[in-house]
Amino acid sequence: MIVTLLTDFGTADYFVAAMKGVVLGIAPGATLVDLTHEIPPQDIRAAAFFLRSLHDVFPSGSIHLAVVDPGVGSARRPIVVADRHLWVGPDNGIFSQVYERDPDARVFHATNERLFRHPVSATFQGRDVFAPLAGALAAGLSVHDVGREIHDPVRLPPPRLERLAGGALGGEVVHVDRFGNCITSFPPDALPADALLPGFRLVAGRGEIGSLRRFYQEAGDSPEPFAIWGSAGLLEIVVNCGSAAERLGLERGSPITLHPTPR
Amino acid sequence: MIVTLLTDFGTADYFVAAMKGVVLGIAPGATLVDLTHEIPPQDIRAAAFFLRSLHDVFPSGSIHLAVVDPGVGSARRPIVVADRHLWVGPDNGIFSQVYERDPDARVFHATNERLFRHPVSATFQGRDVFAPLAGALAAGLSVHDVGREIHDPVRLPPPRLERLAGGALGGEVVHVDRFGNCITSFPPDALPADALLPGFRLVAGRGEIGSLRRFYQEAGDSPEPFAIWGSAGLLEIVVNCGSAAERLGLERGSPITLHPTPR
Amino acid sequence: MIVTLLTDFGTADYFVAAMKGVVLGIAPGATLVDLTHEIPPQDIRAAAFFLRSLHDVFPSGSIHLAVVDPGVGSARRPIVVADRHLWVGPDNGIFSQVYERDPDARVFHATNERLFRHPVSATFQGRDVFAPLAGALAAGLSVHDVGREIHDPVRLPPPRLERLAGGALGGEVVHVDRFGNCITSFPPDALPADALLPGFRLVAGRGEIGSLRRFYQEAGDSPEPFAIWGSAGLLEIVVNCGSAAERLGLERGSPITLHPTPR
Repeated sequence: MIVTLLTDFGTADYFVAAMKGVVLGIAPGATLVDLTHEIPPQDIRAAAFFLRSLHDVFPSGSIHLAVVDPGVGSARRPIVVADRHLWVGPDNGIFSQVYERDPDARVFHATNERLFRHPVSATFQGRDVFAPLAGALAAGLSVHDVGREIHDPVRLPPPRLERLAGGALGGEVVHVDRFGNCITSFPPDALPADALLPGFRLVAGRGEIGSLRRFYQEAGDSPEPFAIWGSAGLLEIVVNCGSAAERLGLERGSPITLHPTPR
Repeated sequence: MIVTLLTDFGTADYFVAAMKGVVLGIAPGATLVDLTHEIPPQDIRAAAFFLRSLHDVFPSGSIHLAVVDPGVGSARRPIVVADRHLWVGPDNGIFSQVYERDPDARVFHATNERLFRHPVSATFQGRDVFAPLAGALAAGLSVHDVGREIHDPVRLPPPRLERLAGGALGGEVVHVDRFGNCITSFPPDALPADALLPGFRLVAGRGEIGSLRRFYQEAGDSPEPFAIWGSAGLLEIVVNCGSAAERLGLERGSPITLHPTPR
Repeated sequence: MIVTLLTDFGTADYFVAAMKGVVLGIAPGATLVDLTHEIPPQDIRAAAFFLRSLHDVFPSGSIHLAVVDPGVGSARRPIVVADRHLWVGPDNGIFSQVYERDPDARVFHATNERLFRHPVSATFQGRDVFAPLAGALAAGLSVHDVGREIHDPVRLPPPRLERLAGGALGGEVVHVDRFGNCITSFPPDALPADALLPGFRLVAGRGEIGSLRRFYQEAGDSPEPFAIWGSAGLLEIVVNCGSAAERLGLERGSPITLHPTPR
């Protein structure tokens, strides 16, 4: 059984190691897969965006242990979300994109304390609550045995995507990757079919973009930013061999306005 | 068989990759688990503290390959320590906490050179001595076949923990984690039962702490440092959403004095 | 089946995670091994040097998925190289050291698009081309089914190694590791047997080195650089507990001249 791990713990301290040990102690045959431990500290939105990419690539039945948990020790609920995968973590919005993608995903409040590692630390529930849950599920526990289904999980507000006056579309930057590429909230099906033909204008930060390319290399050595359909399935604003975020002054949450090609 | 890896090699160079290849070449079915490769260079104490956390979480029989080895190429002995786990590494004190925890742990000097990878590099025994040992143990070798038992392994001095005049307790900071939390040398059983009731004073760096909390959140937005029983089972000095180390000027080895609650 | 991963993607973004998911989706029993994701961005030479170290340590049949791909989306070919291992990646020279080591290695142009993940992203072929190929090979696909053999793979120029006037040898720094050790292009069999007896001179950057040591510790606390036969099987220029690169002003590509011991 595949158990992936995503945290904001870094790997310099023993936190991730402890979680791995707990999972393997319960499910010795589990295949552990490090996704990342470099989510910016307590950045639930970044974690939610990262998790969004897993659906289409990991096999059905994968268990994703995701611990970015600014509310550790408070009353926030531990949950398990079930769609084709199982998602284990705190109920703080980290699985928002799972709900958005599959409205039929079911959410279970993990109240079965017999599954936890005792005594439960007030500061490290990754080890004492979430890893044991993931381990138990990997060992074959039914999700119905973790606790009762709930219907009010915490959701982050969805990324901005709205029709503006004059046929324009309002969006935002949802993620800036390590290369400075700016992933926008525009998926293909939110745009008119001819929205990105020559003549469109994409206003972003202190720049305005008018070209859509298929490959980075089409830009040659030009330092001009351009748009591209990125690997996340969303429109990206990029610079060939450079940082679009720096060049345009963009960060996550920066508004973007698309003026589609006039007909 | 689980084989964990802990080093100070980082992962930018080929060193860790080479160790993994050697283990898998000998024990193809081994489950490799990266613990960390970010131990500060040659910092044996940091490695020893990290390893301390593994006992309670990894399953019996796990093999821990730990290479922080400032003396590589010198006469320091390669050893295998056996308690419920097996610990493979240099005899430089890196397993001090293993001995402290289990006085019955047995230590074997690995002199059976047929187990090594030849020619043995003078600069990279992680690959040529320690990884082959871990691989052989993962493949079923008895620890008795690595070499003779020894009774004088190198031990780091234990963390400071002493009774001072007037009922005070002297300790020290044993680890500062990446968030700036300062883990002290005080375990619960070294303190009188009522030592941390309101009225205690914990003198640490340029501060004095008088409150013990259960959760970070109890502190609200207060930037005041407080004490908490941390996930390592030791008293920690922390600041909610901040670095206690920076705020109080603490580092590993900084002395701490606890004046328990007066009766 | 062992599938290793080497990229320049870092692990903060979802790129490596996506590749892992794709491999496991096709070959659920694969043993994934992270080699490094910290190759400097687009640095094909650094990747080639790293891969050079894997032959002797990983078991036969290992599959190495190596994606450092500045030409993603352009016409560069995806290839699979077969010697005792299988190497999957772009045809940009990343496998140069494989060809150099084994002139009988066979190279296949992966044109069988049924193996790819569709639609193939123009910007992330690690996920859509290379990971599916590695997964299919791990699941048992014959390398002959990926496409036709080719005989003109891209090769990086080999490291400098030449005889100079007066019996001197010209080489270069082929890698600087994280400790600042400078690995040269001199293998033992390129040097006369007595080339490094006392009296030799190794001219490198702003320094001249005249001593060869077996261990770092032989240097004591001396800050003087010296030569050592390193774990990569090449002559290295090092400083005990310091950076030879900084001290001598060396970087990858810096020329090195060896004046062997006069007879």
